[in-house]
Amino acid sequence: MNVEFINPFLSAVSNVLKTMAFTEPQPGKPFLKKEDKPSQGDITGILGLTGPVNGSIAVSFSEGAILAIVSSMFGEQFKAINREVRDAVGELTNMICGDARRMLQEKGYLFRASLPTIIDGKNHKISHSHKGPVLVIPFTINSDYFFVEACFEA
Amino acid sequence: MNVEFINPFLSAVSNVLKTMAFTEPQPGKPFLKKEDKPSQGDITGILGLTGPVNGSIAVSFSEGAILAIVSSMFGEQFKAINREVRDAVGELTNMICGDARRMLQEKGYLFRASLPTIIDGKNHKISHSHKGPVLVIPFTINSDYFFVEACFEA
Repeated sequence: MNVEFINPFLSAVSNVLKTMAFTEPQPGKPFLKKEDKPSQGDITGILGLTGPVNGSIAVSFSEGAILAIVSSMFGEQFKAINREVRDAVGELTNMICGDARRMLQEKGYLFRASLPTIIDGKNHKISHSHKGPVLVIPFTINSDYFFVEACFEA
Repeated sequence: MNVEFINPFLSAVSNVLKTMAFTEPQPGKPFLKKEDKPSQGDITGILGLTGPVNGSIAVSFSEGAILAIVSSMFGEQFKAINREVRDAVGELTNMICGDARRMLQEKGYLFRASLPTIIDGKNHKISHSHKGPVLVIPFTINSDYFFVEACFEA
């Protein structure tokens, strides 16, 4: 995993959530996943990247985290995951990857992005191709968590 | 949705499962999803495509369908979704998209593929970007189901 890929995703999450949801999530320490153990989330946006190397990005939220974010985005209280929340996850995933791609392009890495797919289901497991290491960038918002996982061909 | 995109995915599923799992799933009639209603699966491989249009592909299995397929692939009985089953879903998704991309290239459409992401969790819901229509290609194997969903920018 090229270390230059880490900061664009870290910054993109902060930029997008500040702009769209007026919230500043607390970033945790990014780490490379050593074990072959799937992560868990309640709702996840997944987007593929092609470019100098091919990759995949998952932006995965606990239910509490996405409801807090979407409630702040729309200025009304969301109490359950519904179609609007799913759409918001697709849009946030697009925007986070778009902002990261802009920063990667400034460093000379030109990536193209697929359309996002959105998965929801309590505690679903997320795993990746074995072709590359998996970078996890964790965040907390109030006492809830979300994370970005990036996998690029080694 | 370009109708030329349908047959390559239909054929790719049959080719890959015949070659890898010695099984011939029964194809149902492909349809364009009219309602904004998420599909459900127990384990899903997701892969992004970039090219003349950008898209996303989900290959989603009921637990019964993937256990039958993987048992046939490896010649031993699988009774639960585990790491080997997840890896097999990633590989099958890669191969189905690879075979479809080969056929699309013969028609003049050159797509690149991201890495696959694998999701598992009983009855998770799968939804797509609003930028394009969603094509569903259903299959049955014994009395279990699986399907390919393709979403391309309109």
